[in-house]
Amino acid sequence: MNTPLSHANSRVKEARKLSRRSVRTERRLFLADGPKAVEGALSVPDCVVEVFATVRAADEHAQLLADAPQVWLVEDRAMESLSDSVTPAGVVAVCRFLDVPLSDVLARSPRLLTVCADVRDPGNAGTVIRTSDAAGAAAVVLAGHSVDPYNPKTVRATVGSLFHLPVVIATDPGEVVSELRSAGLRVLAADGGGERDLFEVDLTPPTAWLLGNEAWGLPDELAGLADERVAIPIHGRAESLNLATAAAVCLYASARAHR
Amino acid sequence: MNTPLSHANSRVKEARKLSRRSVRTERRLFLADGPKAVEGALSVPDCVVEVFATVRAADEHAQLLADAPQVWLVEDRAMESLSDSVTPAGVVAVCRFLDVPLSDVLARSPRLLTVCADVRDPGNAGTVIRTSDAAGAAAVVLAGHSVDPYNPKTVRATVGSLFHLPVVIATDPGEVVSELRSAGLRVLAADGGGERDLFEVDLTPPTAWLLGNEAWGLPDELAGLADERVAIPIHGRAESLNLATAAAVCLYASARAHR
Repeated sequence: MNTPLSHANSRVKEARKLSRRSVRTERRLFLADGPKAVEGALSVPDCVVEVFATVRAADEHAQLLADAPQVWLVEDRAMESLSDSVTPAGVVAVCRFLDVPLSDVLARSPRLLTVCADVRDPGNAGTVIRTSDAAGAAAVVLAGHSVDPYNPKTVRATVGSLFHLPVVIATDPGEVVSELRSAGLRVLAADGGGERDLFEVDLTPPTAWLLGNEAWGLPDELAGLADERVAIPIHGRAESLNLATAAAVCLYASARAHR
Repeated sequence: MNTPLSHANSRVKEARKLSRRSVRTERRLFLADGPKAVEGALSVPDCVVEVFATVRAADEHAQLLADAPQVWLVEDRAMESLSDSVTPAGVVAVCRFLDVPLSDVLARSPRLLTVCADVRDPGNAGTVIRTSDAAGAAAVVLAGHSVDPYNPKTVRATVGSLFHLPVVIATDPGEVVSELRSAGLRVLAADGGGERDLFEVDLTPPTAWLLGNEAWGLPDELAGLADERVAIPIHGRAESLNLATAAAVCLYASARAHR
C-alpha cells in the first residue's frame, strides 16, 4: 500500500473535479461514495477505475477492496475533499458512466419502465431509481432537463440501485414516448389531473410510467403523447403525493398486475 | 398596519425561539412557514395565534391574511430570522399545537391509521403524514423517539397535511400497538423481513400500519406485537424501499382494498 495521499496530490485533485457535472460529462466518470456504493460499483464489470480509502476504512473494508482494480490510501483531509458526505465513510470509487442507449433497453422487451421528465431534485431522482429497482422495472429513463444520475446526492439516494438497473439519459422526452410506444409499450402519464383512476386501469400490458417535475408535474403537451393520463386517487385532503411516493404507488400497482 | 418590526423586536424574538423543540414543547406553539402552510393553519379553528409578514408578502397574500386573527408586518431580516427556508416566502404563522390523544382518534372508529416508531428524519415524517392524508388514513401516530411533527422541516414536508389530519404523539410504541388491537384494529408491521407478502394479505379489515426507523426498521420486540409482519415484495435487486415510499405502497394497498 502507498503512503496516504494528501488532498493536494494530483490524483486526488483530479478525482475531486468529478464533483462538477461538466467534468463528469466530459470524462464520463463519477464518484461512488461509501462502502455500499463502492460494493455496488465493484459488482459491475469494468465500472471501477480506482478506489480512494482512508487507512482506517481500508482496514475495515479490506475484503471489499480486495476486488478493486486499484486502491489508493488517502489522508482524512483528502477523503473529506472527495466525499460530499458530512461524515465520510472513508471509501470513494472513481467509476465509469453506466448509462445505456434506449435501444439497448428496448431490445430486451421490458415489461416495466420508468421515464422521468425534468426531475430536478437529486434525492428524488435517486429514490425513483431505487424504487424502480425494487418494483422490478427494467430501466429508468432520465429525460429532458432531469438531474444528472451521477450527482453524488443521486448516487447516494439510489442506495446501490444505480449499479443494478440500466439508466438511460435522453434529451427529448417526447421522442422517448414515441419510441416506447413504437416498441409496443403502453405509456401511462402519472398525472394528478388525469382522467383515469390508477386502480381502474388495466396494468397487465408492458407499461412505461411517465413522471413529471416535482413542482409542476408533466407539461400538457408531453402528457398528451401518452396512451393515458392516470391519477392516483386522493382519498383525504392532500393536494398531491410527492414524486417518489407517487412513483412507488404506480410502479407497485404495475408490479402487482404483472404477477 | 404596524411599522415593520425589526429582527430585534421582542415579539419577533419570542416567535424565533420556537425554532427550538424545547421552547415549542413548553409553549405548545410552533411556526408554519410559507403561504401554503399558513393557509392550512388558518383553515383550522383557533390554530393561528398571529402571523408575521413582510410588506411585499402582506400585499401579495392580502386575501389569505384577511382571515388571520393578528398580522404583524416585519422587515426582511426579521422574516429571515423566523423562516428556516433559504428563500423565505414572507409569511410565517405562530400556531397552537394540533396533536390529539389516541383515544380521540379511536373514538371515531378509524379504518386506516399510520404508526411511526422512532422515525427520525423530519422530511420522512412529513412525507409520511402527507402520504397518509392522500391515502385516506384517519391519523398518524408518532411514537417512541420519533421526530417532532412541529419541526419546521416536517411541517414543510407535510405540504399542509399536518393541518388536515390528526397527529398523535405517544411515548411507548408497544402501548400504542396494544391499544390499537384492543380497539379492533389489525396492526400490520411493515417489515422487509416479514413472512407475509403485502399483496397476499387480506387488507379489508380496519388496519394500522406500523413503520420503523429509516435506518434500522422495526425492533423485533415491537414487530412481534403486531398481528402480522408484512413485506413489500422486492422484485429487482434493491435491498429495500425508503420509509416514505414503503409507507405509500402499504397505505395505498389498504386504500385500494377499502374501496
